[in-house]
Amino acid sequence: MKKIEHIGIAVSNLENASIIYEKLFGASAYKEEEVESEGVKTAFFRSGPNKIELLEASNPESPIAKFIAKKGEGIHHIAFEVDDIVTEIARLKKEGFVVLNEIPKKGADNKWVVFLHPKSTNGVLIELCQEIR
Amino acid sequence: MKKIEHIGIAVSNLENASIIYEKLFGASAYKEEEVESEGVKTAFFRSGPNKIELLEASNPESPIAKFIAKKGEGIHHIAFEVDDIVTEIARLKKEGFVVLNEIPKKGADNKWVVFLHPKSTNGVLIELCQEIR
Repeated sequence: MKKIEHIGIAVSNLENASIIYEKLFGASAYKEEEVESEGVKTAFFRSGPNKIELLEASNPESPIAKFIAKKGEGIHHIAFEVDDIVTEIARLKKEGFVVLNEIPKKGADNKWVVFLHPKSTNGVLIELCQEIR
Repeated sequence: MKKIEHIGIAVSNLENASIIYEKLFGASAYKEEEVESEGVKTAFFRSGPNKIELLEASNPESPIAKFIAKKGEGIHHIAFEVDDIVTEIARLKKEGFVVLNEIPKKGADNKWVVFLHPKSTNGVLIELCQEIR
């Protein structure tokens, strides 16, 4: 857990939300990217060593569409950067955390990603991510 | 907005949650602190340049007690570090953000803190914080 890589925020409309977060940070998104396999359109903002990822559902079956239907817009997940995602998953599994996908999958922003189930982390959806080299 | 200073996580039981987050980070909380004015007991963990703040309500009127009653345990707020909190509040107010307390108040971990209303930030409770010098 080297740092908070990013915070994911579920939004209903990426364009409108991007205008708000541009004002918040005083700077535009440095990247917009669609991840079809996850059903999301994303926009990334920088805050020093960290990022904010805005997430809009790109189809009604998207986890983001379901999240917003249930809880409304808001913080969706925290992502921590790790050096070796495979070793870290094995360690956390041994510690009793529930790993949602044991085989890392390709996420946005050139990352391998794995999620931990919120039931094992006090209601927080935690992502581990490692840069794809 | 120099960086994400910390993420605040609302938990029902600080002692139990601390055991879980100790396992997650592979390290103990570096600080425990009660903020009576906010009705919270806190524990802080480090992740590189960032921190995780676990928050337990210390009385039934605490904002954390109300949050958990409504939404369950989970991410409560994101705090961004700023150099000059007074200037930053003025800028954000001008940009249309709803500032919850215009006069910075003393928060945990030796900080001046101000909150933005989630209705102006896509459902996200945002804290600005500045080290008390």
